[in-house]
Amino acid sequence: MQTKIKVGIVGSTGYTGLALIELLLRHPNVTIQFLGSEQYQGKKFSEVYPAFKGILDKKCAPSTLANLKACDFIFYATPNGICHKMAPKLVKAGKKIVDLSADYRFRNKKTYEKWYGFKRSDRDDTKLIKDSIYGLVEIKRDEITKAIAKGKLSLIGNPGCYTTASILALSPILEAHASDTSKEALCDLGSIIIDAKSGVSGAGRKANLSLNFSEVNEGLAPYNLANQHRHTPELEAFFSELTDEDIELSFSPHLIPMTKGLLTTCYISLNPKRANALCKKYKSRKLEDAVHKLYTERYQDEEFVEVLDKGTYPNSKWVVGTNKTHIQVSYDERLNRLIITSAMDNLIKGAAGQAIQNMNLLMNLPENLALELSPQIP
Amino acid sequence: MQTKIKVGIVGSTGYTGLALIELLLRHPNVTIQFLGSEQYQGKKFSEVYPAFKGILDKKCAPSTLANLKACDFIFYATPNGICHKMAPKLVKAGKKIVDLSADYRFRNKKTYEKWYGFKRSDRDDTKLIKDSIYGLVEIKRDEITKAIAKGKLSLIGNPGCYTTASILALSPILEAHASDTSKEALCDLGSIIIDAKSGVSGAGRKANLSLNFSEVNEGLAPYNLANQHRHTPELEAFFSELTDEDIELSFSPHLIPMTKGLLTTCYISLNPKRANALCKKYKSRKLEDAVHKLYTERYQDEEFVEVLDKGTYPNSKWVVGTNKTHIQVSYDERLNRLIITSAMDNLIKGAAGQAIQNMNLLMNLPENLALELSPQIP
Amino acid sequence: MQTKIKVGIVGSTGYTGLALIELLLRHPNVTIQFLGSEQYQGKKFSEVYPAFKGILDKKCAPSTLANLKACDFIFYATPNGICHKMAPKLVKAGKKIVDLSADYRFRNKKTYEKWYGFKRSDRDDTKLIKDSIYGLVEIKRDEITKAIAKGKLSLIGNPGCYTTASILALSPILEAHASDTSKEALCDLGSIIIDAKSGVSGAGRKANLSLNFSEVNEGLAPYNLANQHRHTPELEAFFSELTDEDIELSFSPHLIPMTKGLLTTCYISLNPKRANALCKKYKSRKLEDAVHKLYTERYQDEEFVEVLDKGTYPNSKWVVGTNKTHIQVSYDERLNRLIITSAMDNLIKGAAGQAIQNMNLLMNLPENLALELSPQIP
Amino acid sequence: MQTKIKVGIVGSTGYTGLALIELLLRHPNVTIQFLGSEQYQGKKFSEVYPAFKGILDKKCAPSTLANLKACDFIFYATPNGICHKMAPKLVKAGKKIVDLSADYRFRNKKTYEKWYGFKRSDRDDTKLIKDSIYGLVEIKRDEITKAIAKGKLSLIGNPGCYTTASILALSPILEAHASDTSKEALCDLGSIIIDAKSGVSGAGRKANLSLNFSEVNEGLAPYNLANQHRHTPELEAFFSELTDEDIELSFSPHLIPMTKGLLTTCYISLNPKRANALCKKYKSRKLEDAVHKLYTERYQDEEFVEVLDKGTYPNSKWVVGTNKTHIQVSYDERLNRLIITSAMDNLIKGAAGQAIQNMNLLMNLPENLALELSPQIP
Repeated sequence: MQTKIKVGIVGSTGYTGLALIELLLRHPNVTIQFLGSEQYQGKKFSEVYPAFKGILDKKCAPSTLANLKACDFIFYATPNGICHKMAPKLVKAGKKIVDLSADYRFRNKKTYEKWYGFKRSDRDDTKLIKDSIYGLVEIKRDEITKAIAKGKLSLIGNPGCYTTASILALSPILEAHASDTSKEALCDLGSIIIDAKSGVSGAGRKANLSLNFSEVNEGLAPYNLANQHRHTPELEAFFSELTDEDIELSFSPHLIPMTKGLLTTCYISLNPKRANALCKKYKSRKLEDAVHKLYTERYQDEEFVEVLDKGTYPNSKWVVGTNKTHIQVSYDERLNRLIITSAMDNLIKGAAGQAIQNMNLLMNLPENLALELSPQIP
Repeated sequence: MQTKIKVGIVGSTGYTGLALIELLLRHPNVTIQFLGSEQYQGKKFSEVYPAFKGILDKKCAPSTLANLKACDFIFYATPNGICHKMAPKLVKAGKKIVDLSADYRFRNKKTYEKWYGFKRSDRDDTKLIKDSIYGLVEIKRDEITKAIAKGKLSLIGNPGCYTTASILALSPILEAHASDTSKEALCDLGSIIIDAKSGVSGAGRKANLSLNFSEVNEGLAPYNLANQHRHTPELEAFFSELTDEDIELSFSPHLIPMTKGLLTTCYISLNPKRANALCKKYKSRKLEDAVHKLYTERYQDEEFVEVLDKGTYPNSKWVVGTNKTHIQVSYDERLNRLIITSAMDNLIKGAAGQAIQNMNLLMNLPENLALELSPQIP
Repeated sequence: MQTKIKVGIVGSTGYTGLALIELLLRHPNVTIQFLGSEQYQGKKFSEVYPAFKGILDKKCAPSTLANLKACDFIFYATPNGICHKMAPKLVKAGKKIVDLSADYRFRNKKTYEKWYGFKRSDRDDTKLIKDSIYGLVEIKRDEITKAIAKGKLSLIGNPGCYTTASILALSPILEAHASDTSKEALCDLGSIIIDAKSGVSGAGRKANLSLNFSEVNEGLAPYNLANQHRHTPELEAFFSELTDEDIELSFSPHLIPMTKGLLTTCYISLNPKRANALCKKYKSRKLEDAVHKLYTERYQDEEFVEVLDKGTYPNSKWVVGTNKTHIQVSYDERLNRLIITSAMDNLIKGAAGQAIQNMNLLMNLPENLALELSPQIP
Repeated sequence: MQTKIKVGIVGSTGYTGLALIELLLRHPNVTIQFLGSEQYQGKKFSEVYPAFKGILDKKCAPSTLANLKACDFIFYATPNGICHKMAPKLVKAGKKIVDLSADYRFRNKKTYEKWYGFKRSDRDDTKLIKDSIYGLVEIKRDEITKAIAKGKLSLIGNPGCYTTASILALSPILEAHASDTSKEALCDLGSIIIDAKSGVSGAGRKANLSLNFSEVNEGLAPYNLANQHRHTPELEAFFSELTDEDIELSFSPHLIPMTKGLLTTCYISLNPKRANALCKKYKSRKLEDAVHKLYTERYQDEEFVEVLDKGTYPNSKWVVGTNKTHIQVSYDERLNRLIITSAMDNLIKGAAGQAIQNMNLLMNLPENLALELSPQIP
């Protein structure tokens, strides 16, 4: 009988912590060793959440170094600014980590510190930042597995929910752009707009008046428009690296009166001349068909990405409760504008599910363990 | 390697059909052999429900006898009045069946026909009705397993959602009443009121104006009060059998603006004299504690029933997505009135989950296969 | 041109304060003189609530005696325990007051202090409590107008939301009970159960984790069962006074995932012998019809109460946004049990609307001013 | 005493019909003369909608010419393709009409017929189309009042909900663009993207499976992307006329799980050179401030449009129940991209409220009669 991986969760009682636990309880190779919570230390998890009565009665405890060293694998599901304080020590102690906060999403420390508003305590220690990888699995899998093979990867920075949905929506066309050697570029990189919509759980588990049911229900609002949201630099850094060009884009988040689920509507203008080349390459008369083929081909081996049939639009409800991303491709020929929509569960594929994909990779397990989830409709 | 059970689902595209499929996809001993749908025959399940793209691409087909004979096990997740037409033939052909409709919930054909408004086509064939058992597992498990051991059980009538929640809430105190040999009865059987509240999916998957989002959302309404709802005779028959007394009760359903989940608030008056005897038996000073102990003891070996700690009220949200029932016991000493609340997922424990419990029993499998489900909060 | 009544609102930024303002803005005889708020003092109301931009740009200010003395009429829309501190002074200064908190709902100070958990500061001054009236207009109108005519009424204690709905539902049958001079009582007063369901705004405007959208949405829960809710003694005091008998009852509140609206399902057992007398009196063959007539007759002159046609169940959505109560009467003949349901907008008829009815009475204005509100469906 | 205007509503039982009635009941100069409904003819309105019991008990009747001729003013709140059949006759009979369907929104009959999929029956009668005006009051008021003064205006085509919100959001900057005489254009007209989000009532009152609560709730989906939605040509025609240039744009509608409310997020790129000129004109250092001033100035006399303070984002909840539009201006300097958001109640300002604005104009009444509505928060 195989020894199970002892997993610890720092920040176990927030919404991403909860989502991790709900998934890890299904994982055949894992045992939940440690539930970190300063606020609820000493309380059973099932006292904090009666939903878990008879399911998880283990007690919460503070996230001391000693407690974490008793684990093989650690998830940080905390607010930003916590993981980087202890992660270097844990890695030195041989632990593997997936950080669901933003601490290890940026190679550029200054960008991180500017957007997150504080100085890091690991300012003189840049090695772990350099060695870590941004864990958008479907795009970075090669890089991740190579680093693992070399024994060099101990910590993965898990992407944000909005960023995961946006990256999966736009990467195939941007990869095509980047690999295109002709003089005229396929995409107008200055045209990218991501109009994103998220359920309320994306704001986390807080006693906040603006999240009170009576304030949120039956209402719809944008926030942090025009380069005000922290996922903007995360997206720009990712796409700039992907295309090797400086990308600046509009990211517009909106709060939707539903608990879970996320949808992005992404706009990018194509150069009609290079677009024709795409049609030729994919033997399609219409560019929409060519791009549909490009996307289908790109994701054909990806278990957690489905490119929907033409004419079928994604619905966040269809993927809530699963680790799937649904993607749809539309093209407005009059305007040479591509419209890509993507839907996911913000707490699963946008957080805990992707984190477990990353754990499975780091621990040399099949990537889909604990993640073969049925839809939850209606 | 073990041969998998070939399962067919008649009525696979309704909400209980969907819930069955979502659970069966997790079942290690089952393969989905047949998806019955007259309306969508010839269409892939994932075309009807894009949520299942890449998960269940099998085609739907009509529920002919030939199609069903290719299965080992058949679930009827259809409207009432369909199962009884073909079930006798299927049972003769050696098939096992769980019927999620009301066709096999009543031993008394006349009661069924009166409440369901039509004549059955199996009027001269009463054997299958007699041989079938009402599948409220936690209360009827002994009867079910004995009948299986004798090779006499082929069909289980799966209880309604409201009835399951009500029976689990009231059975322990009524069993105590029934087993009490003193002259004064423990319960005032005429005092039973079940005030029940259900999410909208309980009404099924229909294009019905009264179920339109804009009509239902932000509204709350009772319906079928005062002996007008079909679950009233189902409950009365069950409790009358349980206590061996004629029980008539008030069952008051309400429609709640949420998709899934169900809660019952059950009232029953106790005889203060016998109530004191209960206190003695359970060594409790307060009757509320005694009844809490009675319930805890009654359900201590039941994986799918949790009696909540004192002071913790059930929330339907905690059990949605699981096969659990949460039960709470309150007692108003001034009025000698016991108030029992119970919560469940109307489509899982109230339908598909309980149906799979019954299938597991019928197929001699561990009762919890495919049903060890995590909560889905938030 | 008539001088307008200068109205002040203490606690103007809570949900009942908001509801008052939304209605008072329609009132032809009123000008909003003062908006009390300690938390937001100095801020424009439209800064606190951008919904009021261009509608109410007046600034909030602290509720000092001086500020309140500048008003003719004062609403207290505050938490409990505040109004009684200043009300006696304001009344002496000739002001009229409607208190939407519980401070003046109880004639019995001890009951108030026990349930509300603190000592009042007006312990030696019982006059205002004695002189005030519980403002359930449809039942107390005579008492209120007589006291006004005698110049003796300055302050009305506005009923709670749950209590208003319950009182309107049960009073006609209890009045019939009380006026029945036969030896056998019409109602079994020990049988009263009120199973009540409220939208989330009933919990007030608070940053409270348990009111977070993600915690409340798609969930349903009871709370404070078995004589734990403060509206229980309020109801018992009212009905005891109405019938001149000691009444104890079960009041069971539930939280429903919707913002506004409230429904009560009230149960009371009738004595079949006296029930027959009711049939005779109303020339009905069926008791349900007799009670329907009793209710229709009782409320025929009441603009804000509609007794629905037989077979039509109330829906809270139909009355949200209005000052109406919808009432339905059902009777289970087998059990001699009457089931009365009532629906209202918890913030209007259950709070601010009724408060304005009371203000209109106190100021000798037509009772329906500012309250002729259209439904807001869908 | 003034004679009241006798108003008829064709299609009175749909959601826009309902919204009209809810507003007209407040209108001091109007009496509801006629309630058109083929489906419910002979039934009291309060039988169809018990919410109106005691409020509107008038019977519904078929919309025959005779019935309509008994009215002074007629609203068409019907599906498309009905109004144009009878409108010419009604106008000849001296009636005034506001058509809330699309029949009179297009000057170009072919565009209408192409997008709406049928041949009009008034093909040889183009006069009424020519004489009618598109009733976007805040932009077209001059044109409307002049035509009225000349006695030439009998029928107004009421704009769609999405179009109203989009036009109010984009018109000020496009007017500035159009009036700019420099060689370099202010706006990149090819860059316009309108990402729009609407509550479910926008789909109308239908028994449609895809509108079933359980299908819609807790889900979010785009539809009709890339020039597939009928509001695209309506917007393009309007903006092309406004700017006297051919405008093609992206309009992307999304369905939001809420009953009422609508939000648009509009993107348009500005030419940085001309943008600087705008800064000069408005004496602002930052373009965002300049555009904010432009918008504030443009709408300063408009009772139903509020330009929100900088940093305040609109929330559809704030305007639901009112005739207001809230508008916010953001600017991303890095990308020279203006982001304008606008929120409204889709059934009021987006339909019935604007229709009554138009009626008030046509009948020479103050434009805001029946439309001074309080917010309905929470």
